[in-house]
Amino acid sequence: MSEKKQIYKPRPISGFPEWLPEIRAVEQTWLDKIRAVYERYGYCSIETPAVEELEVIAAKGEDVDKEIYVLERLQADPDEKKDARLALHFDQTVPLARYVAQNFNDLTFPFKRYQMQKVWRGERPQVGRMREFYQCDIDVINVDHLPLHFDAEVAAVCYEALASLGIGRVQLRISNRKILGGLIQGLELENLTEITRIIDKYEKIGKNETVNLMQLQDITNGQIQSLMDFVQTKNIQDLSASNALMEEGIEELSFVLDQLAHLPEGAVVADLSIVRGLDYYTGTVYETQLFGDDNEPLFTGSVCSGGRYDDLAGNYINKHLPGVGISIGFTRLFDVLRQSGKITPGPKSPAKVLVVLPEEDQRAAMNEVARTLRENGINTETAHGGKLKKQIAYAEKKGIPYIWFPADAQVKDMATGEQTDADPNDWKPADA
Amino acid sequence: MSEKKQIYKPRPISGFPEWLPEIRAVEQTWLDKIRAVYERYGYCSIETPAVEELEVIAAKGEDVDKEIYVLERLQADPDEKKDARLALHFDQTVPLARYVAQNFNDLTFPFKRYQMQKVWRGERPQVGRMREFYQCDIDVINVDHLPLHFDAEVAAVCYEALASLGIGRVQLRISNRKILGGLIQGLELENLTEITRIIDKYEKIGKNETVNLMQLQDITNGQIQSLMDFVQTKNIQDLSASNALMEEGIEELSFVLDQLAHLPEGAVVADLSIVRGLDYYTGTVYETQLFGDDNEPLFTGSVCSGGRYDDLAGNYINKHLPGVGISIGFTRLFDVLRQSGKITPGPKSPAKVLVVLPEEDQRAAMNEVARTLRENGINTETAHGGKLKKQIAYAEKKGIPYIWFPADAQVKDMATGEQTDADPNDWKPADA
Repeated sequence: MSEKKQIYKPRPISGFPEWLPEIRAVEQTWLDKIRAVYERYGYCSIETPAVEELEVIAAKGEDVDKEIYVLERLQADPDEKKDARLALHFDQTVPLARYVAQNFNDLTFPFKRYQMQKVWRGERPQVGRMREFYQCDIDVINVDHLPLHFDAEVAAVCYEALASLGIGRVQLRISNRKILGGLIQGLELENLTEITRIIDKYEKIGKNETVNLMQLQDITNGQIQSLMDFVQTKNIQDLSASNALMEEGIEELSFVLDQLAHLPEGAVVADLSIVRGLDYYTGTVYETQLFGDDNEPLFTGSVCSGGRYDDLAGNYINKHLPGVGISIGFTRLFDVLRQSGKITPGPKSPAKVLVVLPEEDQRAAMNEVARTLRENGINTETAHGGKLKKQIAYAEKKGIPYIWFPADAQVKDMATGEQTDADPNDWKPADA
Repeated sequence: MSEKKQIYKPRPISGFPEWLPEIRAVEQTWLDKIRAVYERYGYCSIETPAVEELEVIAAKGEDVDKEIYVLERLQADPDEKKDARLALHFDQTVPLARYVAQNFNDLTFPFKRYQMQKVWRGERPQVGRMREFYQCDIDVINVDHLPLHFDAEVAAVCYEALASLGIGRVQLRISNRKILGGLIQGLELENLTEITRIIDKYEKIGKNETVNLMQLQDITNGQIQSLMDFVQTKNIQDLSASNALMEEGIEELSFVLDQLAHLPEGAVVADLSIVRGLDYYTGTVYETQLFGDDNEPLFTGSVCSGGRYDDLAGNYINKHLPGVGISIGFTRLFDVLRQSGKITPGPKSPAKVLVVLPEEDQRAAMNEVARTLRENGINTETAHGGKLKKQIAYAEKKGIPYIWFPADAQVKDMATGEQTDADPNDWKPADA
């Protein structure tokens, strides 16, 4: 290495997180747990390309333009025919809608799918905002009519997925957009959009500010009282329906809550202040909070949100495809907990055992032991030579919990220091 | 749905493959199997962002420009400070080099990592060429010196990973670049580059054409004879080293083969015609072929290739980091086998059981059975109502192998038609 080389020192790329192996090990375990719960309920995996045609993304008509990354070839082949412009997907809902439209005849409905991929948004990076992050989504799509029990199912899946991570108490907050819609209809108010936006902020801004904002609308004190009573209603039995739409919403919400009654107390609550984005959701809506041991939220905002929508893929296919879905904003959750020290790093190696090589003439024995352990499903590293002390230090640094001495047929538990006779044919680590 | 909507019919995007759920199920199983083998040998997972700074990619100096996708924001925020130009990674070696350089002080060496991500190349799409595809890589990196036994280890991992897929007989072909280097040195030839390129084509073009190409070089018939004898040598014991470099290569190759002697006969062979790309590899080189039942190759070219390199990250850090690695070109392999009908589609649902709902009053019983099965780790769907016949048809279409009748406490095996009494607390599917 005597020649002088030109070195380009790489910089971290803002908004594109990347973890050391011991953090990645935890991330992978969490993703595996979420996947296992999704599959436990019969959701199938799909993956869509990182890109969509720009026209497909634009067809949704939402104002996401500023966040979209478009691909350009560094040097396009001039002979090549011009391809459609491609953009990185910014969520998994547009890709799902496109996928369902494109594969409509090959899918079996109700179509229950999960999707755990990275998505990209060219946002200005800030705490909790990333440009590349995992989302873990489930959705159920059906043709023409989707039974209401799926609204309860996706909530149960979301609860169980988050609970499986063992990071805190999970609370799902559920409402139904038809209730507020019916109430506003009953009050003969015409500014549904504005009122819904105000109520969406209620938890953040509090009661007084909510009332202040409502007073700026063309609305009587009596109407404000009715809306505030509604928002603060904790028990849906206390609601009286003033029209058919509201009644339908109350019935749907009651059914969904009833189907979730088996979950621990407080796991699911009705919260009529949950309204979510306006144009998309038409029935059940969900938000989720995580609480630490001190009963304080671990996370500002909702870690898992979603709802029911009337028509998934109407932009791409002339079919009526209602659905219900929920999405865990995985990387945001993971990174917030990581930054607040709530994640214990995992091992740097997936190996349970390091088979050491105190002398070169034990190489065949070392390989033989390692092969046997691996055949029995035990993740095993072999030493790469050097002094025994250094080999043991390597196991310690990598978090490998057992050391195997092939010549002595002994295994040492690094945590307890205990060293015992062992046969690789029938040995298991303590946690297996 | 009476209003007329504008519909944009999405087109498949050439070179960006996407699978139906029953194919994705197989892909996922294969990826899981490869991952399990990688972890069995103690390789840790890392993931790097989809993008690298363009300068990082350019630092490698290779002619890949035409294939690189650069990101552009559709509407950049004019107030925002200009970010570095970002490009999608086209392999996992550049990201690994950058990752090791950037995290050098936080990694434990030898650093053994696997990486199974999608990479992007703006190639002209054609059979077996894609613009987005999975690669499954393992590499071992060390500081200053990397013991030779890792050259055997990565070969064993690659063999085992491919064998675990059960798609055909796996044959690794191994050589060592030092042998040809030494031979050419001994023959006092100066056109190492040209001769290596010719030999790299040997398997494709055959003996006569190889000789023809060599005759165009400034090279005697005796020298051609020596080179052809070398390329056709099947047993490395037949080689006699004419100098120290060649001897070193022969010794290294013998050691690696010896360490792999436990694998089935024919699993690993020395093949001196394997030379791989010129500038990168410095020692052991690998290619891999897959053979079907008829002993014909299932795949043109190598499904898993790699080798040893002297210096991984010299462009980014002033450290000497030798490594050895191997990469499975996953999506290409998968798609070739899929297109030739060698992949049996999996089920459309991961569920093992559908609990049916013959009458609405069995809903509580259905939910209870499903909960119990799921608590016992059995993937379970519940029926979404409608006629029993349709519910059973749904299970058949989705490939769900068992149907549970909650009121009768009976389970039906869809394959055999057998219906038996069962208790959800201690029931397991036959393949569990």
